[in-house]
Amino acid sequence: MTAIGFIGLGNMGFPMACRLKEAGHEVRCFDVNTGSMERAHDAGLQPRASVQEAVAGAEVVITMLPSGRHVLEVLGAEALPFAPGAFVIDCSTIDVESCAAFHATLGERGLVTLDAPVSGGVGGAAAGTLTFMVGGTEAAFARALELLRVMGKNIIHAGAPGAGQAAKICNNMLAGISMLAVSEALHLAKRLGLDPKKFFEIASTSSGQCWALTSYAPEPGLVPAAPANRGYEGGFASELMLKDLRLAEQAAVASHSPALLGAAAASVYAMHCAAGKGRLDFSSIIQMLGAAQPARI
Amino acid sequence: MTAIGFIGLGNMGFPMACRLKEAGHEVRCFDVNTGSMERAHDAGLQPRASVQEAVAGAEVVITMLPSGRHVLEVLGAEALPFAPGAFVIDCSTIDVESCAAFHATLGERGLVTLDAPVSGGVGGAAAGTLTFMVGGTEAAFARALELLRVMGKNIIHAGAPGAGQAAKICNNMLAGISMLAVSEALHLAKRLGLDPKKFFEIASTSSGQCWALTSYAPEPGLVPAAPANRGYEGGFASELMLKDLRLAEQAAVASHSPALLGAAAASVYAMHCAAGKGRLDFSSIIQMLGAAQPARI
Amino acid sequence: MTAIGFIGLGNMGFPMACRLKEAGHEVRCFDVNTGSMERAHDAGLQPRASVQEAVAGAEVVITMLPSGRHVLEVLGAEALPFAPGAFVIDCSTIDVESCAAFHATLGERGLVTLDAPVSGGVGGAAAGTLTFMVGGTEAAFARALELLRVMGKNIIHAGAPGAGQAAKICNNMLAGISMLAVSEALHLAKRLGLDPKKFFEIASTSSGQCWALTSYAPEPGLVPAAPANRGYEGGFASELMLKDLRLAEQAAVASHSPALLGAAAASVYAMHCAAGKGRLDFSSIIQMLGAAQPARI
Amino acid sequence: MTAIGFIGLGNMGFPMACRLKEAGHEVRCFDVNTGSMERAHDAGLQPRASVQEAVAGAEVVITMLPSGRHVLEVLGAEALPFAPGAFVIDCSTIDVESCAAFHATLGERGLVTLDAPVSGGVGGAAAGTLTFMVGGTEAAFARALELLRVMGKNIIHAGAPGAGQAAKICNNMLAGISMLAVSEALHLAKRLGLDPKKFFEIASTSSGQCWALTSYAPEPGLVPAAPANRGYEGGFASELMLKDLRLAEQAAVASHSPALLGAAAASVYAMHCAAGKGRLDFSSIIQMLGAAQPARI
Repeated sequence: MTAIGFIGLGNMGFPMACRLKEAGHEVRCFDVNTGSMERAHDAGLQPRASVQEAVAGAEVVITMLPSGRHVLEVLGAEALPFAPGAFVIDCSTIDVESCAAFHATLGERGLVTLDAPVSGGVGGAAAGTLTFMVGGTEAAFARALELLRVMGKNIIHAGAPGAGQAAKICNNMLAGISMLAVSEALHLAKRLGLDPKKFFEIASTSSGQCWALTSYAPEPGLVPAAPANRGYEGGFASELMLKDLRLAEQAAVASHSPALLGAAAASVYAMHCAAGKGRLDFSSIIQMLGAAQPARI
Repeated sequence: MTAIGFIGLGNMGFPMACRLKEAGHEVRCFDVNTGSMERAHDAGLQPRASVQEAVAGAEVVITMLPSGRHVLEVLGAEALPFAPGAFVIDCSTIDVESCAAFHATLGERGLVTLDAPVSGGVGGAAAGTLTFMVGGTEAAFARALELLRVMGKNIIHAGAPGAGQAAKICNNMLAGISMLAVSEALHLAKRLGLDPKKFFEIASTSSGQCWALTSYAPEPGLVPAAPANRGYEGGFASELMLKDLRLAEQAAVASHSPALLGAAAASVYAMHCAAGKGRLDFSSIIQMLGAAQPARI
Repeated sequence: MTAIGFIGLGNMGFPMACRLKEAGHEVRCFDVNTGSMERAHDAGLQPRASVQEAVAGAEVVITMLPSGRHVLEVLGAEALPFAPGAFVIDCSTIDVESCAAFHATLGERGLVTLDAPVSGGVGGAAAGTLTFMVGGTEAAFARALELLRVMGKNIIHAGAPGAGQAAKICNNMLAGISMLAVSEALHLAKRLGLDPKKFFEIASTSSGQCWALTSYAPEPGLVPAAPANRGYEGGFASELMLKDLRLAEQAAVASHSPALLGAAAASVYAMHCAAGKGRLDFSSIIQMLGAAQPARI
Repeated sequence: MTAIGFIGLGNMGFPMACRLKEAGHEVRCFDVNTGSMERAHDAGLQPRASVQEAVAGAEVVITMLPSGRHVLEVLGAEALPFAPGAFVIDCSTIDVESCAAFHATLGERGLVTLDAPVSGGVGGAAAGTLTFMVGGTEAAFARALELLRVMGKNIIHAGAPGAGQAAKICNNMLAGISMLAVSEALHLAKRLGLDPKKFFEIASTSSGQCWALTSYAPEPGLVPAAPANRGYEGGFASELMLKDLRLAEQAAVASHSPALLGAAAASVYAMHCAAGKGRLDFSSIIQMLGAAQPARI
């Protein structure tokens, strides 16, 4: 049994904390939201009155917060009573600059740190099937493995500190571009009179093949399990994809890496969210292209 | 044995014609290029002095030409002495408007027509392993099947007349976007200090997975067979990808289908070709992004 | 007095025809729309039962039609009874390929041709203050000048046949990009807490200056006469800007000219029109960017 | 006479410092570059051994540094011996986040701060004709005015702290987009056979008008004073435009403002610089589009 301080009990953090508790760990938790704290109490977690109290004496501290600013504000407070040599794992998806500051600031205090953003959504958090992309030393990764396996199925050591965040945003940038690209290709196919099923069949076994088409097609009737078949409900919200695309664009600008398609996809998702579609699954981006009756050319 | 008129003996047309001859057909062929005609003669094909002579009496006419304008100029001549009910198969990759005119013009003359663009490159043409994406009636497709199987391994009936071209350009637009997207993601990953091999491993089994990454990665050292490992020689030339991206953009504009990423990829390939890289494999597009040493952020 | 055949009596064509009539010319006109024909009759124009009858015996034929296809279908009919040496002026905004076909087809029949697209909108057509961008020979331009001055104030000889269309679509592509660029800059300025009036004042006298900002700003309160101050009513409709951006993109693809920003602007206008905003003035494109309260960074 | 501490003696900082000295002020200066310090000594400025010594006792401190990181590292040192109530003017062009930190950090120490980025280039710095875009309180602006007028001709109060940087990057984003847009329009015009001079004449008085065309055209032969007529030497370097476009993109991402065209322009400038053209004037971006002989369409 490990004494764990867990900060951030939102849609993702709460089920993750519950799995740790069910695995026999003592989960001392905190969230600024009162409702989240009540829910935590009802679930048998141990709510504490402040970050300080949640962290005090914990062998491991886990954070699951909305942004880099939150992570640095919560963990950066100088007076935070970390146990000596405590192990701090940030599971939030945050910008690479804040991630670097997280490692540097806590490292200076003698703490061991990992960045470990996840994919897999709320369902994966509840089922313990998340994927963790982990950045940190080999030793830190080895030390975290058992705990992360309680919450996830696929635990990947991406590399040095920061590599977890880097892997996640690069992958998600690619996924976001792919989804818009697939939408464009399907829209054009339909306008040209091609049956989308036929296009799906051809491109899925050709050079256009990609996960966004083959496993998650944005057009209804192609992939049974895809959100497109249930009104784009559930899945991975457009506003979360926009968040990740912005993190990627931010990293690209800061690192002087030209990311034309990444920035273009970010802009289209921003317009989609501005049109009120942020809660729909990110494959709903196909709606931005308008109706697609076959055209006379 | 079928008497075949074959027009266009370039890099693709010549090996295709040779396979037909080797299968026992009589291949009466023509090309405006004298060298191509000599090569055809040496290979045992039957060069004729003009399109008229190649077409006269042929049961099947096959064209493999650079553009829609060429196809319409060659086949549209009113005096062309087609055999009654002759079967005309255009294997060129051309614009959708010319393709529609091809079907309409020859159809009015009582000819049976198919659009049947290919993928698989010069190697596939020589080995008879091309993929054919075919547009035309069920009856016409059935009638062509045996002949196409001499030249290709994967013969797909994409749908009504024009569907072959539509399938090819939609797929290739998706492939062109994907390749640039993968390049951006790999470049960013490296700038962020992530090992490209690690990124490859993660994204290949995640939502960023796509053929352009998994089977044809633009970074050396990831996919052994990919052109990236031999200086981007061979493969599918950037100038041919640019041609296909332009055909897709043209179709998108004509059919009022918004293709932002498709047009953006076309522009970057145009700049790449303008910089003298048109002959390199299309995965060389990653060179447009510049060097990618890890950056201090 | 000149006998003029006038084809196309829509929002632009009707007031243009009226001005010709008021200047003392005999305007024999035709439109497929019955209501337009009645309106023409009431206005003292001379409606004819067909294009043939409108054209027969006319010294000058003027067309004002929605697209290149219409122009070629209407004027290309072989049996059309043009007077020998008749002068045909197409004032439609059409694609460059159709424009080339217009000059070629009618030129072969011995007719004198001009492409003469306009800018200035319905108001300019009624007031006779249109701008004409004219492509054709010096002689043809000189011959048309008096007639065009009845309908417009600014008559520019852009160059050889086709130059009028080229000038219009290149200019309008630039205007469409500029309007979206100004929208982005104003949106960003506001998000950063800068007063839009102050940004307007600074950029209007700096390197960011452009007509879309200085004379037609998309933000209310900056340019009194701009459509932004009256709910984006009136002005130049977004769907017309989209039409012109598509003509430019089509010409760019056909002529192998990379137009990344032009294509991007076309896509955003397509999304804007797909969202039901096609009738609003083209400066309403700023709405695509969402609300712009100052942000905490 | 004012005692001024001046940090940063590069291409811009050195001539600015010289003008202050010539106006009778005592300029105690520092730069990490030894050559710059020798040049300063030769010019009659008063080089000091460190930032500390340059700042000690100065009534006004002026910084002209390459980036926000430099500004914060130089000015943020806690032990810096500012005179009580000293006036700190940062003339660097930096990111909006660092600019906010600059005001906050120094404000907490009781110092009066202004952000005052410039435009006008090395020539303007030497001639004292720079434009200053100033962010800060009314009182601070009034206090700085006399000093800024020694270095510039056009001193604009853009608004509250940060407004100077915001105004500069929004304007320059617009200028960068405009230059690429003008390049695309000119390239397309030429490919369509239109004389660039004629296009210049038409668009300069129409809705496509913009400073990048009318005053700084990227095609030789249109604007006599433009860098296009002297091999794109001098002017405003592409790498500086890229820097400003990145600052704008960074601010747009951080403030959740969609800037599609801004990001696209940034990517093309990045590719241009990656191709070794960073030192050429930013109007050389037209070279990315390739040669532009008229095309057969």
